Amino acid sequence: MKTREKIKKAAEDVYKKILKKKKPSMTFPLRALSNVKYDPKKGFFELLGKEKIRTLTVNTVKTFAQTLRMMSLSNEVLKKDDIATKREVYYVSKNWEDARFNEQTESDTVMDDIEAMFMVNREQLGFIPEEKGGDIAGKLIVIDKDPDTGKKIKIDCTKFGSGAYSIPISVEELKFETKAKFILAIETAGMFQRLVKHKYWKKANCILVSMGGVPTRACRRFIRRLSDEKKLPVYVFTDGDPYGFASIYRTFKVGSGNAAHINEYFCVPRAKFIGITPQDIIDYKLPTHPLKDVDKKKIKDVLKNDPFVQQHKEWKKALKLLEQMGKRAEQQALAKHGLNFVIEKYLPKKLKNPKSWLP
Amino acid sequence: MKTREKIKKAAEDVYKKILKKKKPSMTFPLRALSNVKYDPKKGFFELLGKEKIRTLTVNTVKTFAQTLRMMSLSNEVLKKDDIATKREVYYVSKNWEDARFNEQTESDTVMDDIEAMFMVNREQLGFIPEEKGGDIAGKLIVIDKDPDTGKKIKIDCTKFGSGAYSIPISVEELKFETKAKFILAIETAGMFQRLVKHKYWKKANCILVSMGGVPTRACRRFIRRLSDEKKLPVYVFTDGDPYGFASIYRTFKVGSGNAAHINEYFCVPRAKFIGITPQDIIDYKLPTHPLKDVDKKKIKDVLKNDPFVQQHKEWKKALKLLEQMGKRAEQQALAKHGLNFVIEKYLPKKLKNPKSWLP
Repeated sequence: MKTREKIKKAAEDVYKKILKKKKPSMTFPLRALSNVKYDPKKGFFELLGKEKIRTLTVNTVKTFAQTLRMMSLSNEVLKKDDIATKREVYYVSKNWEDARFNEQTESDTVMDDIEAMFMVNREQLGFIPEEKGGDIAGKLIVIDKDPDTGKKIKIDCTKFGSGAYSIPISVEELKFETKAKFILAIETAGMFQRLVKHKYWKKANCILVSMGGVPTRACRRFIRRLSDEKKLPVYVFTDGDPYGFASIYRTFKVGSGNAAHINEYFCVPRAKFIGITPQDIIDYKLPTHPLKDVDKKKIKDVLKNDPFVQQHKEWKKALKLLEQMGKRAEQQALAKHGLNFVIEKYLPKKLKNPKSWLP
Repeated sequence: MKTREKIKKAAEDVYKKILKKKKPSMTFPLRALSNVKYDPKKGFFELLGKEKIRTLTVNTVKTFAQTLRMMSLSNEVLKKDDIATKREVYYVSKNWEDARFNEQTESDTVMDDIEAMFMVNREQLGFIPEEKGGDIAGKLIVIDKDPDTGKKIKIDCTKFGSGAYSIPISVEELKFETKAKFILAIETAGMFQRLVKHKYWKKANCILVSMGGVPTRACRRFIRRLSDEKKLPVYVFTDGDPYGFASIYRTFKVGSGNAAHINEYFCVPRAKFIGITPQDIIDYKLPTHPLKDVDKKKIKDVLKNDPFVQQHKEWKKALKLLEQMGKRAEQQALAKHGLNFVIEKYLPKKLKNPKSWLP
């Protein structure tokens, strides 16, 4: 069922209840870690099925009205093939009189509820994040359409010289053509620029993605759709630190707890870790920094509470080794062996040896 | 004189002094606000001419050696037409034995010194920032070259659908073709996406740039080079708050105090402000947020100390009005009047009426 049909059906349910003089209600899945499970075969955090029901009462009347108005706005936006950022939605509500939101956090919460109610992602409601996407270079043709004419536009990501294709905020409509062998997702813009400068994508026959830290929703969704449609392996190249392991890679691969209703769309379960491991720090004698307190705390937390790490003894081992060493290393640390050591030695050797990856 | 020639000459000076058994020295301009002046006719913060001299002594021997090694690395990188990020330079130094840097802040400082000594920007030394650039859509063809073959590549920024061209980290070599009437630099990625979605660049015959907050060096340099070569006016569209006025626009237009030796390259003196002014908040009855303490402090600071604001009574007036109102408004606040009010009313009216701009 398309999103607009779902909206129409939900609105009709409310309308019919009212005509029958019954209290209308809406049902949402509970969005919390307590309502999440992780099955490595499925590959991402899933909802368990706990629900909350919002019934129209004196206490809920404002939120109820806001939810309906936001559904109506989504319907309008989709009908016109327009978009609205989360912040714009908040400001549009300033014309909803008593149903206006006082803070953007309130409108964001209602948006999350609607997303969860229809089990779609925000982008499918026509609502887009503020943040932009991530950059692409290499063996990929992106097929978009001209917003005016609807005519196909082919964007060849081999034809950008030192620049790159910037992923749009909403990627649902994009299509792809590629003969690449894999996708390489890179933590820093600096490392991405080095690989672009030396046309690594041509030598390795791959697609390069610059994540610029924790990847945005658009970036994750882009890689997810591309890797699903073209059956491409995805390799993630981050720093060797708890932030790279747990904040970037874990979220990228299996998702996060507080957004479990959309992990299905945004995580990339087929991803493998080819970034700097604690073993690499030893083998390559990399320059390091001492672990910060926040790093140490993160390792402890993750070892104890993270359902993903629980399932993978390789990650447990790596994190314990890092804790024991008390050190971390950045991906640029490879430059100790020469600026292009990463291209000539590190990446080719890693990619040839799956035993050196982390799951 | 090309950068490599400058390096060679500086190295020769040191070498000759040593042969004559004299103490070699290097001279750098003092990098501080106390060594800066602002002339509105020139349009950017300029150095006054104070210098510091680094002579080889027991105390300076390490920094002296590091400066020479980094000059040598720059020479190598330029010779090979390679690049190195600031962080990579730091790691490369790990092989310089006693001349190695212990912290990246140390290597960054030496890099700034060399930049100032030769009066070039870091990119001209082959050293690039970690951060990436900004996005472009609209009536512009960027001419880059294939890193392998050196063949020209033409990138047509009208052909990206919902996506955009991502500015590379180093833009010195790019060339441009355009018949656009102006450049519009936009604070948020969300607003940029709206203008792209509705092909505003076609209606207005312009080039859209997404800055994503405070623009990076690459983004500023890109706009500067493009606007200089094509004699294009540049309009800046930010939120109506002290951050948009002083952190984004002021730095964009005239530069900053602690990097005065490179403002010449990175600021865009021809820029005009068409973002949300305090008067717009009143005229359009925009939804606002109260000024935060940090906003109030910034207004006071800027009114008192900023040489740019001192020179422009319009900015003084606007900042005082904002202070008096105690409010700020985001560019998305225009959505109160409809999602596309910004396209249909706000921008056309602003652009037609130079009296509504700020200098």
